[in-house]
Amino acid sequence: MDSALIVEEVQLTPILISDPPLLNTQGVHQPYTPRLVVEVVTRGGVTGLGETYGDGKYLDLARPLAGAMPGRPVTDVNGLFSLAERVCGDSRAVDGRVDAGGLRGAQTADKLRLSVVSAFEVACLDALGKTLGLPVHALLGGKVRDRVEYSAYLFYRWDAHPVGGEADDWGAALDPAGIVEQARRFDRTYGFRSFKLKGGVFPPEREVAAIRALAEEFPGRPLRLDPNGAWSVETSLAVARELKDVLEYLEDPASGTDAMAEIAARADVPLATNMCVTTFEEVPEAFARDSVRIVLCDHHYWGGLHRTRELAALCRTYGVGLSMHSNTHLGISLAAMTQVASTLPRLDHACDTHHPWQSEDVVTARPLFEDGRLAVSDAPGLGVELDRDRLAALHRRWVEDDGAMRDRDDAAAMRVADPGWRTPEVPRW
Amino acid sequence: MDSALIVEEVQLTPILISDPPLLNTQGVHQPYTPRLVVEVVTRGGVTGLGETYGDGKYLDLARPLAGAMPGRPVTDVNGLFSLAERVCGDSRAVDGRVDAGGLRGAQTADKLRLSVVSAFEVACLDALGKTLGLPVHALLGGKVRDRVEYSAYLFYRWDAHPVGGEADDWGAALDPAGIVEQARRFDRTYGFRSFKLKGGVFPPEREVAAIRALAEEFPGRPLRLDPNGAWSVETSLAVARELKDVLEYLEDPASGTDAMAEIAARADVPLATNMCVTTFEEVPEAFARDSVRIVLCDHHYWGGLHRTRELAALCRTYGVGLSMHSNTHLGISLAAMTQVASTLPRLDHACDTHHPWQSEDVVTARPLFEDGRLAVSDAPGLGVELDRDRLAALHRRWVEDDGAMRDRDDAAAMRVADPGWRTPEVPRW
Ligand SMILES: [Mg+2]
Ligand SMILES: [Mg+2]
Repeated sequence: MDSALIVEEVQLTPILISDPPLLNTQGVHQPYTPRLVVEVVTRGGVTGLGETYGDGKYLDLARPLAGAMPGRPVTDVNGLFSLAERVCGDSRAVDGRVDAGGLRGAQTADKLRLSVVSAFEVACLDALGKTLGLPVHALLGGKVRDRVEYSAYLFYRWDAHPVGGEADDWGAALDPAGIVEQARRFDRTYGFRSFKLKGGVFPPEREVAAIRALAEEFPGRPLRLDPNGAWSVETSLAVARELKDVLEYLEDPASGTDAMAEIAARADVPLATNMCVTTFEEVPEAFARDSVRIVLCDHHYWGGLHRTRELAALCRTYGVGLSMHSNTHLGISLAAMTQVASTLPRLDHACDTHHPWQSEDVVTARPLFEDGRLAVSDAPGLGVELDRDRLAALHRRWVEDDGAMRDRDDAAAMRVADPGWRTPEVPRW
Repeated sequence: MDSALIVEEVQLTPILISDPPLLNTQGVHQPYTPRLVVEVVTRGGVTGLGETYGDGKYLDLARPLAGAMPGRPVTDVNGLFSLAERVCGDSRAVDGRVDAGGLRGAQTADKLRLSVVSAFEVACLDALGKTLGLPVHALLGGKVRDRVEYSAYLFYRWDAHPVGGEADDWGAALDPAGIVEQARRFDRTYGFRSFKLKGGVFPPEREVAAIRALAEEFPGRPLRLDPNGAWSVETSLAVARELKDVLEYLEDPASGTDAMAEIAARADVPLATNMCVTTFEEVPEAFARDSVRIVLCDHHYWGGLHRTRELAALCRTYGVGLSMHSNTHLGISLAAMTQVASTLPRLDHACDTHHPWQSEDVVTARPLFEDGRLAVSDAPGLGVELDRDRLAALHRRWVEDDGAMRDRDDAAAMRVADPGWRTPEVPRW
């Protein structure tokens, strides 16, 4: 093995990035959200980039893994899983409680570890690609499409955070007119064809009205509604009945495989999920019970780009559609998502991305969405470069934070406006 | 993309290789069996090697695919599938008839095409690895083990072909003593720990006696019996009852998912297959019905090394064990099998290989089995080099053949000794 491909060191940089006051069923995005930037530096002097969740429980795992990387070849990404099992130990604060992590299914020690491993895998692939002069997609067998389609991610939101945070010019969106206005701007600015509304915020009839308004404004365009499991089976069925003529899919209307299976059996709208199928262990039962027609993969918690390709193969084999989930993320992860998405033989639905909501980034170039699509970069690695000044500034914000924002907590953020707020029990409606 | 990675041309070389008179339920191996060597030559002057079945129906597909390759990057292996669908057309002679191909399940146009694509994929990966100075396993995410275990592949056999063929010094093996003697030599020469007997040749009680004799000679060693679907459900159950204390698994005792599912439900021995699960399309039903506990993957007909990794992920997800199937093959495919096997997180059973039966090869170095294992090469590409003189000689044999051996036909080979022989109907017993 060429020594240029051996890891010299790994830098971990936790940062806080500005996040708008986007609402979901558990609360509201904090003014700043933690992310972790992973830099894998090779003996050849090349730096590969990865990005994942930055909460303390992820940092706890990332630190020992970073310490174990020097001396390993960046080609060895299959070995990261057993390495992480050996060196990471268990994170603090892993339980079955539905918290911010609950928006992407049950938290488990395995899923936390995979979310960390994935950032190291992406960074290794980026370093490998940069060293070899090959794009990451070529390291995954090559792209099968030149552009990857994304959807507009619509949120109920406030004009501004009650305390702190950076201002933006999107304004509030708290009713159908506000959502349609937001969608128009997404359409105009980025050319997105599909629209997804983050629901579970208001009583279902208000969200049904918002989807109806979108259908009227954008006839024939793919529409999605995702209340993050906030509804009962009966409520989900009622919404499905009301919106079956306009919904591309209904995403996680209710929580748990039982509820999803029952809704799937009785509704005329395809169900999608990034909550009831979030690990390979959850696949067999969910597929056997036809609980979902579309899985939203996410390379972060599925364990990286290779695992994403394996999940895609599973979905293909079982006739289950594929799309891509997104949480608040930066340009590194957007590049990783685009690279792996470009290699999947079937990608049935436009991918989600929060990225247009992120005003701050650690990469030098803003991604350019055209007709809702990103061109697949053929530059070496992920095709993005780190802006070290921005990274340093965002890290400084993390260092100077008193700890309040270092762990994302949408319910705590909501309590700033509504002191009595508690994470709602599900079903909420 | 570096122009050194662009395909300049593809050379196809059909060859005939010497094959001993190994018996199976359909007949006997011909004196010579066809293989196809695929050479992908890049503009950088690097040659990548692949190998697959060499019968006319494969050549029919390989020729147009070879013609479509120049100008494509060798990194683009994901794109080979749609390319092949576009350019190959349908092979002649595809039907559902159980013939030599039937030893690996139903023949379909898709499976023939995948068997051809896989050789091109392997050749592209070999060329890519050689160009970059990386082993193929590093192009698949890296090895997770340094050695890959193989099993001894025991065959009932004659001393020599009735007409033609090269002599060898193995002698006949037609009874338990002969099989045990053969196993001793495999054990002594290669150190294989596991033994697989190709059955379906003699009435089941004789094959049961052979397995019993092996169990006595090699107590505690993993034993397998594979009659290639020749038995009825009741016969399979009777054999399973008799051998349940010594069999690692029973491989394809009966034909078809229905029969396998029934046996699996009633037998105390795990069932393995390379006949009832041979395509991704066949996976869901077979897994849902618990028809098999072990899938024997084969990169040739599953469509290459990436697809093999996807199949492995499927098996892992569904708790199905993994091993590897083999047909008559040369050192190129053995290297490919070893490279991909080294990357699979779980490989539950020693892999099959016919290679020790092959006295002729097109690569320069004989593989070195130690303790039944092959070391995983870290040399660039597959780690094997072509012996052009041998290749030319074996190709000359193919050119000079009158056509009798160019399509493998085990029943025709049997008719040389037994003019009344016909491919047996199943269940045969
Ligand atoms: Mg969701
Ligand atoms: Mg078999």
